[in-house]
Amino acid sequence: MKRLLTQLSGFLLIALLTAAVFDTTPAIGQDEAGPVDEYLELVESSGAEYAPAFDFFTVSMLWTVIAAALVFIMHLGFATLEAGLTQSKNTVNILFKNVWIISIGLITYALLGFNTHYPVDSWQIPGWLGINGPIGDLNADGGATWGYGGLSLAMTGYGDFIFQAMFAATAATIVSGAVAERIKLTSFMVYSTILVAFGYTIAGSWHWGGGWLSSLGGGDAAFYDFAGSTVVHGFGGAAALAAVLILGPRKGKYTSSGIKPIVGHSMPLATVGVFLLFFGWFGFNGGSVLSANPGPLGLVFTTTALAAAAGGISSILTSMIVLKKPDLSMALNGLLAGLVSITAGADSVSVWASVLMGAIGGVIVVFSIVFFDKIKIDDPVGAISVHGVCGIWGTVAVGIFGGANLVSQIIGVIGVYVFAFIFSYVVFLLIKMTMGVRVSEEEESGGLDIGEHGQEAYNIT
Amino acid sequence: MKRLLTQLSGFLLIALLTAAVFDTTPAIGQDEAGPVDEYLELVESSGAEYAPAFDFFTVSMLWTVIAAALVFIMHLGFATLEAGLTQSKNTVNILFKNVWIISIGLITYALLGFNTHYPVDSWQIPGWLGINGPIGDLNADGGATWGYGGLSLAMTGYGDFIFQAMFAATAATIVSGAVAERIKLTSFMVYSTILVAFGYTIAGSWHWGGGWLSSLGGGDAAFYDFAGSTVVHGFGGAAALAAVLILGPRKGKYTSSGIKPIVGHSMPLATVGVFLLFFGWFGFNGGSVLSANPGPLGLVFTTTALAAAAGGISSILTSMIVLKKPDLSMALNGLLAGLVSITAGADSVSVWASVLMGAIGGVIVVFSIVFFDKIKIDDPVGAISVHGVCGIWGTVAVGIFGGANLVSQIIGVIGVYVFAFIFSYVVFLLIKMTMGVRVSEEEESGGLDIGEHGQEAYNIT
Amino acid sequence: MKRLLTQLSGFLLIALLTAAVFDTTPAIGQDEAGPVDEYLELVESSGAEYAPAFDFFTVSMLWTVIAAALVFIMHLGFATLEAGLTQSKNTVNILFKNVWIISIGLITYALLGFNTHYPVDSWQIPGWLGINGPIGDLNADGGATWGYGGLSLAMTGYGDFIFQAMFAATAATIVSGAVAERIKLTSFMVYSTILVAFGYTIAGSWHWGGGWLSSLGGGDAAFYDFAGSTVVHGFGGAAALAAVLILGPRKGKYTSSGIKPIVGHSMPLATVGVFLLFFGWFGFNGGSVLSANPGPLGLVFTTTALAAAAGGISSILTSMIVLKKPDLSMALNGLLAGLVSITAGADSVSVWASVLMGAIGGVIVVFSIVFFDKIKIDDPVGAISVHGVCGIWGTVAVGIFGGANLVSQIIGVIGVYVFAFIFSYVVFLLIKMTMGVRVSEEEESGGLDIGEHGQEAYNIT
Repeated sequence: MKRLLTQLSGFLLIALLTAAVFDTTPAIGQDEAGPVDEYLELVESSGAEYAPAFDFFTVSMLWTVIAAALVFIMHLGFATLEAGLTQSKNTVNILFKNVWIISIGLITYALLGFNTHYPVDSWQIPGWLGINGPIGDLNADGGATWGYGGLSLAMTGYGDFIFQAMFAATAATIVSGAVAERIKLTSFMVYSTILVAFGYTIAGSWHWGGGWLSSLGGGDAAFYDFAGSTVVHGFGGAAALAAVLILGPRKGKYTSSGIKPIVGHSMPLATVGVFLLFFGWFGFNGGSVLSANPGPLGLVFTTTALAAAAGGISSILTSMIVLKKPDLSMALNGLLAGLVSITAGADSVSVWASVLMGAIGGVIVVFSIVFFDKIKIDDPVGAISVHGVCGIWGTVAVGIFGGANLVSQIIGVIGVYVFAFIFSYVVFLLIKMTMGVRVSEEEESGGLDIGEHGQEAYNIT
Repeated sequence: MKRLLTQLSGFLLIALLTAAVFDTTPAIGQDEAGPVDEYLELVESSGAEYAPAFDFFTVSMLWTVIAAALVFIMHLGFATLEAGLTQSKNTVNILFKNVWIISIGLITYALLGFNTHYPVDSWQIPGWLGINGPIGDLNADGGATWGYGGLSLAMTGYGDFIFQAMFAATAATIVSGAVAERIKLTSFMVYSTILVAFGYTIAGSWHWGGGWLSSLGGGDAAFYDFAGSTVVHGFGGAAALAAVLILGPRKGKYTSSGIKPIVGHSMPLATVGVFLLFFGWFGFNGGSVLSANPGPLGLVFTTTALAAAAGGISSILTSMIVLKKPDLSMALNGLLAGLVSITAGADSVSVWASVLMGAIGGVIVVFSIVFFDKIKIDDPVGAISVHGVCGIWGTVAVGIFGGANLVSQIIGVIGVYVFAFIFSYVVFLLIKMTMGVRVSEEEESGGLDIGEHGQEAYNIT
Repeated sequence: MKRLLTQLSGFLLIALLTAAVFDTTPAIGQDEAGPVDEYLELVESSGAEYAPAFDFFTVSMLWTVIAAALVFIMHLGFATLEAGLTQSKNTVNILFKNVWIISIGLITYALLGFNTHYPVDSWQIPGWLGINGPIGDLNADGGATWGYGGLSLAMTGYGDFIFQAMFAATAATIVSGAVAERIKLTSFMVYSTILVAFGYTIAGSWHWGGGWLSSLGGGDAAFYDFAGSTVVHGFGGAAALAAVLILGPRKGKYTSSGIKPIVGHSMPLATVGVFLLFFGWFGFNGGSVLSANPGPLGLVFTTTALAAAAGGISSILTSMIVLKKPDLSMALNGLLAGLVSITAGADSVSVWASVLMGAIGGVIVVFSIVFFDKIKIDDPVGAISVHGVCGIWGTVAVGIFGGANLVSQIIGVIGVYVFAFIFSYVVFLLIKMTMGVRVSEEEESGGLDIGEHGQEAYNIT
């Protein structure tokens, strides 16, 4: 193992050195002239009639990078939510996995995700598979202004990259929660790398890269998934389901004497996680407007917030009626359910439709979590229900309330979910056959923190 | 109870369905033309001479929604601060209440808060009462550009809505902290709903909706409360005082052998809360500029930060002198005291006045917390002092340092505080007489987490 | 002590009152005309040909204040990271110190940091020392538009101030972590005030204030430190080293039977801290573009994120190989190492160079932390390695990958580090000789929370 890692590191270092030296290096000294002078030159070279448009481009680009930062903080939200809803003996492991996921997600997206996701050059299988190589200098050839996307994109290449890159790791994070408390660390590291580098980017290319999903039905009847209810959240949920099926439930969860609840170790941590996810979702959905256009921007912020609120209220009421108690975990999952439910249609439904979509999501998530537990699919944080099940509802709902073609919506859901499930299943099975996917029973009962990391999360005296 | 909830949910569902179906649904397909093209069309239709103004509108609107997201994160700040400063047996309850408040606050603001707060159409009692119905499609009739507010508002209707909606739940959150550890959950849910739906919006309409406060003194002598020292924080503080008077202190707090301190269970959680509140306050005050105008924006960020810092330092020094120890809770409350103290005048005082206002706020809060404890008004987190008392100081201080009319400031404070106190007192009393407001002694000593939710906040092994 | 504090407070109050009264107070009533009208007037008065430039100025200024808020949240990141990596008996103390640092950092920056940092008026020793007084009304004389910096600065005076002010406290925070768990509170309060008020601002003036560093080598060969690998992080790291050398290690850390690890008390808290630092770094580096210029902005966001990710991955792999276990603390420090390593060159290296720079930083930090432990320099959170050592690497790397002059980079590093070390050493020694710097052995073993504050951080039942 050590040898393999050493060799891998060595290889990585050489590859990087080569890339770094041969890459064009931007010259220093750009701030010798004042920024306003510089900007006026940019405007002039764009043609005077585009002056207000170029200002719009600038503010849209600013929003894009701020939105990227907001999506980034969702990864802290996922990390703390997952940690809070699981046992304290596995907390270091969960936090570690989330550091890994955001890191490897960003690097692999630069290496091949971005150019696969937006296959400018070439498809290997037209509409279905278009793996492409690493990004170069996206600011070159006028890319620092609108040389990258022309009038059809209000951001530079790097803006486009960093915003999409922050999305990429999300799919793997969703799986992380569902397989928590029993998965082998190195196996998860390999699995998540493959999922985020290949699986997610291929699915994304079908929709956002000009693949078959984007032309489904043709024109107005095309599959519509604004910010990724299906392509991001559904993908993650379906992949998680496949992994959990192979991995099996945690020891002691389903016994002959019934289902034993394994409670989370810190509700404050879980709550911090959900509020940060809600906060970051303004960047996730708001940034998906892909510009600072005031009309859609205000609508998207409003529908996003109201759907979350409706999901929170309806899951609270549902848990009070069905579970006979006001359950905090359900309230938190209700907020998230509302958010996933509006993600596909945030820009294209009315505010009252968004309230309804979120409210229904909040009901669905309670029943879904109970259902999966009943059929002994052990998902410690409810990720399959929140992201997978509500992802379906959110996507279909755009066909009901948002004017999208219902058939296309259903076909799109099926296409992405089936692909995610199979991709995840095959990769996870291969890893199971080679490296194994599950820690020993002894390690599971003692906790992965000691078993995998030799560390404990808490030492409060 | 279950039956009532089922009926309520059913009614809500039907109402929503109706609203969703009859509402105009925006058509999908708006991103077929590029965003820059689209934007140029918008600019052209606005008249060429307004091109730079329309760019300003766009950036101002962007700031409005970002500020809304920042105010949102204040709710996580409140949740963690309140949880940190109370006992661990009541943590789930506090977190749950905060999920409820932000959810119901957003929905009720859409249902009637927004149109009551900004009564475009009609007052029932001119200047005093103007309850209006739910929002419609605010992007209709040119509302996606400046059809909503004309040249006098640099944001769309949805921008206006979402920013104000995030403020709405704040008043109820302030009360939440003061009544913590002994209030009945369902009673608080009903109370906070009424407070945020009716109480806060009516008080707000007096000032921001063109009511009597806005014309007080007339012209230059009008009541001035920039971002809501009185209208938001003071309202919450006065409402909290009324509720606490009815509710009474926690068992065992004031005994025959003196005042027994009940210490908070997690200072890290409380600290996270205060820093998040400080962070979010940049949106609260900065967003209240209501545009991205660089002059006031920079001033407001600066006065806000300096007042908080001065409040932190002065409360630290005061606690070292008066309490003979550098108390972390006091330091944290000092930061908040500084923030509340500058909220009324952040745009209209000099930086050194802001330092002085914050510093005095930091001194006041220490004495005020000690004072309320002495007269046996039990406020576990110091909310009445931070928001209520410093809200008075902040509002009056604009009359001293910011050129506002001192008499109008004092009348405004009295008007809002008296209304908030009476409104809260009556509603809380009615709830006490019907549902009861306090948990049983047994539940209080065992903790509300088990008693109300059947859950514990921590399971650290 | 009490008497001294009372006198100091009295003096402060009088000084503030004087400043507040004599300062020019902006008049209220600026929102009588609509914001768009107002803005058009501003544009007109700037000359029509500058209309798009003024829009650019406005959006750049907006970005500046948002970036300031992001840098602010880094202080919560530092507070939680430091608290998480140390023992629970010293948590209140660490949180308290961080409240103090951000507060005193902002106030002293207004009092003398800003005008020393940007010595507009006068140097006492040309290029080396230019202490100047408090800020006045920076919006005066056209400062609310571009009267402050002309075409060469895309922000108002207050924008400039608040962004730089948020940086100022960082240096002291870095020291805070290194001296944790044994330093006397009042001594640290005095030390950090002097460091942030004088030390940091003097070093900063050499580079950003037009001092000797800014003209080193002349023109293209000048020292280059984009956002402060050396001037901020290196300064803090070197100052920390000096303080730790005087202070000595924690009791029981280095015994005759070897090095005894003292583990942190909460890995979730530490993880929250690092993710918040990562989040805030988008403001730290992104804001250092000093405008919303889309080209550099996108590049800086991308290099910043990729360097962090590469640092995370390389430190994970290094810890697996060298320490034989996937260590979460190392993974977290690897993310930070990557961030510090890119801070000097974020705008001037290619993306693949940024990956390499971050990856090397992630390797360095692991070896550095092990090294300092071996030579018995006790740094509980690894601050000297993360900020000091990676600060050197990051600055030198701009000479390798970013086209800066390698000799100037090395001279600049030596100049700042030597100054920071000596300044910190002298100040800390003087404090040791007068007030003492270390708590008693008894207090150290009992914890500073009880010893200094009479409070405990946790009371979880």
